[in-house]
Amino acid sequence: MQRDDANPSADPAHYRALLRAPDAHYIDVIDQRALPHTLIRVKIADAGAAALAISQMWIRGAPLIGAVGAYGLALALDRDASDVALAKAHAALNATRPTAVNLRWALDRVLARVSALAPAERADAAWREADAIAAEDVAINHAIGRHGVVLLCDIARRRTGALRVMTHCNAGALATCGWGTATAPLFIAHAQGLPLQVWVSETRPRLQGASLTAWEMAQRGIPHTLFADSASGLLMRRGDVDVVIVGADRVAANGDVCNKIGTYDKALAARDNGVPFYVALPSPTIDWTLADGATIPIEARDADEVLSVTGRDDQGQTVRVAIAPHETAAVNYAFDVTPARLVDGLVTERGVAAATTNALAAMFPERQA
Amino acid sequence: MQRDDANPSADPAHYRALLRAPDAHYIDVIDQRALPHTLIRVKIADAGAAALAISQMWIRGAPLIGAVGAYGLALALDRDASDVALAKAHAALNATRPTAVNLRWALDRVLARVSALAPAERADAAWREADAIAAEDVAINHAIGRHGVVLLCDIARRRTGALRVMTHCNAGALATCGWGTATAPLFIAHAQGLPLQVWVSETRPRLQGASLTAWEMAQRGIPHTLFADSASGLLMRRGDVDVVIVGADRVAANGDVCNKIGTYDKALAARDNGVPFYVALPSPTIDWTLADGATIPIEARDADEVLSVTGRDDQGQTVRVAIAPHETAAVNYAFDVTPARLVDGLVTERGVAAATTNALAAMFPERQA
Repeated sequence: MQRDDANPSADPAHYRALLRAPDAHYIDVIDQRALPHTLIRVKIADAGAAALAISQMWIRGAPLIGAVGAYGLALALDRDASDVALAKAHAALNATRPTAVNLRWALDRVLARVSALAPAERADAAWREADAIAAEDVAINHAIGRHGVVLLCDIARRRTGALRVMTHCNAGALATCGWGTATAPLFIAHAQGLPLQVWVSETRPRLQGASLTAWEMAQRGIPHTLFADSASGLLMRRGDVDVVIVGADRVAANGDVCNKIGTYDKALAARDNGVPFYVALPSPTIDWTLADGATIPIEARDADEVLSVTGRDDQGQTVRVAIAPHETAAVNYAFDVTPARLVDGLVTERGVAAATTNALAAMFPERQA
Repeated sequence: MQRDDANPSADPAHYRALLRAPDAHYIDVIDQRALPHTLIRVKIADAGAAALAISQMWIRGAPLIGAVGAYGLALALDRDASDVALAKAHAALNATRPTAVNLRWALDRVLARVSALAPAERADAAWREADAIAAEDVAINHAIGRHGVVLLCDIARRRTGALRVMTHCNAGALATCGWGTATAPLFIAHAQGLPLQVWVSETRPRLQGASLTAWEMAQRGIPHTLFADSASGLLMRRGDVDVVIVGADRVAANGDVCNKIGTYDKALAARDNGVPFYVALPSPTIDWTLADGATIPIEARDADEVLSVTGRDDQGQTVRVAIAPHETAAVNYAFDVTPARLVDGLVTERGVAAATTNALAAMFPERQA
């Protein structure tokens, strides 16, 4: 049995979304637009490229965006560490994805670290702070993984054969600096030798399940099966799913979960069939200012994502095809809110909390007013 | 206000999936493979072409398949009405879609009508029987529509603005000889002047909602909006859906409903949000031999339907694109079973029945043992 899972930094480098060699003044990221058909790694050696990587979605996932933003600021300071340049780079990077909370948080953290320093000391400090942000993300995800593995092993003990886990979208290593959130328990369990069978929902409209999660599972040699989103209910009703584990974009103080569109439908099907439904989340995802999820704004994205599909044709070319009549109207909400009553547990870096205001407050007492 | 909805045959010809001019010895069908981008009508003038239209899915939908099969047998008898030729044509047509119950039923009905006749009389009798099968389908769907309209108007009275109806897949005119099943109430309500806003789910993997239902709504000028299947729950939770109405592939004697994959997920979301959930079905869809839906076999289709998407590229070419890594495994169940407890009513040609064994038996007493 492998035991490399005991080390947070053990997530193998060749499928890490973000790499930085010690003392290198560049970072190396996977251009996720080419996945799953081609693995392209891109060297980012200036702040402009970092901004482009975020805004053009070469990389995505809130924790990863935050880290790349932080490194972007370090790259900017390598070139010009004046107050003016620092403010300008912070603003430019922050504008790349204005709604990503982690991006702002990471940029502000680097800014706070370096602004009181003399210009000559700023770049080094920024690189160290960006490294710390990335390392903390890896450590948090690994801790989520360790707690999640306990849950998975508990469920696995009650049955024979591979543990059949359903996930949705990509809350994977590609969305983070390592391990992923919902995937961390799977990767660690697999490394520990627990037989898994992962149900990967394709996740229309952008197909992050089909293109990213399926790729991550294949890279790690974890058996997995893709399905159309609307088959979630049937798979659970057939008794083919032992547990559901998904990520989160924002969690309210009462445990209501905002996550990729379709999460709520899966939670309903899980409850109707007695399948445990867990959400994996780093604690920065918890929005303590929200008593519940009712007021979480739901981002409506471009209708064209629903009206078309991007894939690879017979010649290996990436092609976008229209699937509906010309001029069809479409709605494209990117997220939904799963009420806490449908969530069997919130897997955080500190352990598994019930999805209630009291349980979350007890786990994070320092965040309470 | 238009009143042409009072006449079963009033469904306009130009978007009828199947036309037969009086005394013509051919039929005219829409090649549905080209929808929604191009409307191609095809003249079918021999039994081989009828078989091809069914097996290659130029046409689909159980009632439509049955009618085209019946006309195919009439076409065969035009050429050779001997016992041998009759048996051969029956077998060939029946083999085109071996699992379609309506096809076998329609072919057997024509066979029973003509086999006792002298060969010289067979072709005419077959054409008349096929006409009867098609006309009965139109009349049944129109009756479903009339009963469904009463439901829709009841719900519409309780609110202001357009009635917001969600449907799934294509239980439309294109699946039948006219009006469709789930769509019949919509088309009649629209003709009567009831303002509608139809939520069309794209219906992965084959996208019949995006390609066929959206097209039917556009043809008739009914406002509609496409959405990714996994947005069903959110749309209902937002309060944007007043009623759900879907078709059925097979209904058990207790009201359990086998229909396109994803129907069950929508029924769960409807129940969780207090949205009425109705199923429109012609009574031949009821399988009286099944006490409940637990034993309905679920067809697993080719995984490639999940692994790829067919649409139209920028040059107007129909292209299939791969959406997952090479060699990804996928599962493709075509149907699911919605338990009767989640169904608020079964809209049949005789009226709306509760989804219970007793209510269905009371509505169709002649079908009881």
